[in-house]
Amino acid sequence: MTPAAPARAAVLLDPAADVVELTRQVCDAESVSGGEGALADAVEAFCRDLGAYEVLRDGDAVVARTRAGRPERVVLAGHLDTVPLTDPPNLPVRRELVEGEGEVLAGRGTVDMKGGVAVQLAVARAAAAAGGAPTRDLTFVFYDHEEVASDLSGLGRLARGHREWLDGDFAILLEPTAGAVEGGCNGTLRADVTTRGRAAHTARAWRGSNAIHAAGQVLARLAAYEPAHVEVEGLVFREGLNAVAIRGGIAGNVVPDRCTVTVNYRFAPARSGAQAEAHLREVLDGFEVDVTDVAEGARPGLGLPAAAAFCEVVGTPPAPKYGWTDVARFSALGVPAVNYGPGDALLAHADDERCPVAQILECERVLTTWLLGAAPSEEVR
Amino acid sequence: MTPAAPARAAVLLDPAADVVELTRQVCDAESVSGGEGALADAVEAFCRDLGAYEVLRDGDAVVARTRAGRPERVVLAGHLDTVPLTDPPNLPVRRELVEGEGEVLAGRGTVDMKGGVAVQLAVARAAAAAGGAPTRDLTFVFYDHEEVASDLSGLGRLARGHREWLDGDFAILLEPTAGAVEGGCNGTLRADVTTRGRAAHTARAWRGSNAIHAAGQVLARLAAYEPAHVEVEGLVFREGLNAVAIRGGIAGNVVPDRCTVTVNYRFAPARSGAQAEAHLREVLDGFEVDVTDVAEGARPGLGLPAAAAFCEVVGTPPAPKYGWTDVARFSALGVPAVNYGPGDALLAHADDERCPVAQILECERVLTTWLLGAAPSEEVR
Repeated sequence: MTPAAPARAAVLLDPAADVVELTRQVCDAESVSGGEGALADAVEAFCRDLGAYEVLRDGDAVVARTRAGRPERVVLAGHLDTVPLTDPPNLPVRRELVEGEGEVLAGRGTVDMKGGVAVQLAVARAAAAAGGAPTRDLTFVFYDHEEVASDLSGLGRLARGHREWLDGDFAILLEPTAGAVEGGCNGTLRADVTTRGRAAHTARAWRGSNAIHAAGQVLARLAAYEPAHVEVEGLVFREGLNAVAIRGGIAGNVVPDRCTVTVNYRFAPARSGAQAEAHLREVLDGFEVDVTDVAEGARPGLGLPAAAAFCEVVGTPPAPKYGWTDVARFSALGVPAVNYGPGDALLAHADDERCPVAQILECERVLTTWLLGAAPSEEVR
Repeated sequence: MTPAAPARAAVLLDPAADVVELTRQVCDAESVSGGEGALADAVEAFCRDLGAYEVLRDGDAVVARTRAGRPERVVLAGHLDTVPLTDPPNLPVRRELVEGEGEVLAGRGTVDMKGGVAVQLAVARAAAAAGGAPTRDLTFVFYDHEEVASDLSGLGRLARGHREWLDGDFAILLEPTAGAVEGGCNGTLRADVTTRGRAAHTARAWRGSNAIHAAGQVLARLAAYEPAHVEVEGLVFREGLNAVAIRGGIAGNVVPDRCTVTVNYRFAPARSGAQAEAHLREVLDGFEVDVTDVAEGARPGLGLPAAAAFCEVVGTPPAPKYGWTDVARFSALGVPAVNYGPGDALLAHADDERCPVAQILECERVLTTWLLGAAPSEEVR
């Protein structure tokens, strides 16, 4: 006997609902990281019912793709999970009019990133109605566990176990960018910088050597550092080097023999992780540096014909993405990727998370126009 | 009915034992802070039986004094408690021959400061044999709770509740000084120095302001500071200003908005606590300084005739006491005080605490000679 799967309420996604109503339905299917199962089932059923895709499943990740043998393949990807709800819960979604913002959907996930997931579903539906892959092959990736520790990532699991499901020439990650294209992303590196001294009673401090005083030189180095602005494929990435923690001290009457500064270096995708580490070691030359974590950045890939065409449809100039996102995972697989989705990233995870309805509609319009050469049919709108 | 006092084993101090044997007996009466009762009883009985003193008791503090109306009164003071024993216990005391040190008593309390307590008892006995107060009135103070939080101090309790018991023109605290006179003591002050910034995601660090980087200027100020050497009544006190703790940081991806450096300023007794605070604020001008704790130092008082005569008998030049000791409590009461006792202060609290027998005998000889004009009788030696 295998243990019974935990019971979960069935989620229904209306195959005829417009993208705004789809956003509402996807959001109301609560799916805090680890609880994506019911929503993944509904997404899988929605895609299967479109009849135009090969639908694959791994855990709570769903992949729907065409296999029409087109010369180019585009990937649209988004995560199904959200951060936890507020207390009282910021669900179900409310449709409201907000001064200065117009009509919004308010509630957990509207920004990060179920508006994007609903756009994926609506574009998949429109492409299916147009025969599946009119100009390019398409892959829609929906995955779990993005909002938690990196090693749990559903996208990472697919990259390890089903590398071929993620094949593509260009990927769009529908993370919130308020409808702009944000290309690539900075890498991030963390390191501990330790200074050492010699403990002594503070009443006889001259017998010791103060490791916290010595850390002052590390901080001076960081404060004086001028972070680079690095142009990569036409986008200017701003780097940053910051102390994010410092700790030292044994007791109120002891000269401390050790102090550790934790630094976070955000580096442009022009540098590899190894190059970023080498640069940091150069900046902190003479100090004991222990690198604890590195995640590579991602180049924007905007020089590709597909990307250029996409940016043209969007119409506003692309910007660099400063934060680290899953575009870096695609980049690491050799698939150039950009972020493009509805919602203001500064409202992601916020208690008052909310997304303008107009941005959801605009994202759907841009992607459908780009991929199908036409706006979505009025029938579905 | 009053509750029965907790049972405690009676401690017997042999009234005829020499000072080394007395040290052994005092040490073997285990008296970790809070457990001084049995030893205080024995000290009280020992002093009463000498027949020359008014004996006073407050909690586990015992005061024995003459009231002969001499023009000058000398106080000999010491604490009865010790820090906890090691495991396995470093008691009972062992009498051993140590290479390079000669004969020692080894075990908890031998240095801090039951060698000194035994010397107090031996001097009280010698003075009683000479009539109690041949040249000066004498006060012997034995107190509890020195090795724990300052507000528990038995000496502090006497100062608050029985100020007059501590009257004197000059006090000797029998803390370990390896038989040298250590005059006065430095004061000590602790303060928190806080820098503030503005939190931001490290991916957009330019929107924030890094409080840890700002603390680098505090550390630079401390590292550049040259502590003063301050002469007070012929003794040179070395000051010290040290960061003893630093803490800052919110998360690995957040520009920190606050960093706190805890500093410890050890200041010469030429400065009052208020002057020390003013000096610290001047050194750290421009930073947010919160003084959390100040204990005044103590002037050595070596200019007094009694003190000068005492130093002459000791024979070696007096030195300043850098650490804070209870001489500061006497100083605050207007009683100049010095440290003088057997044992190396660096072995206080050590697992292998041990005191040369020769130092115990020498301290007894010096104090008896100074107070009575004669070495202790051979009969008792």
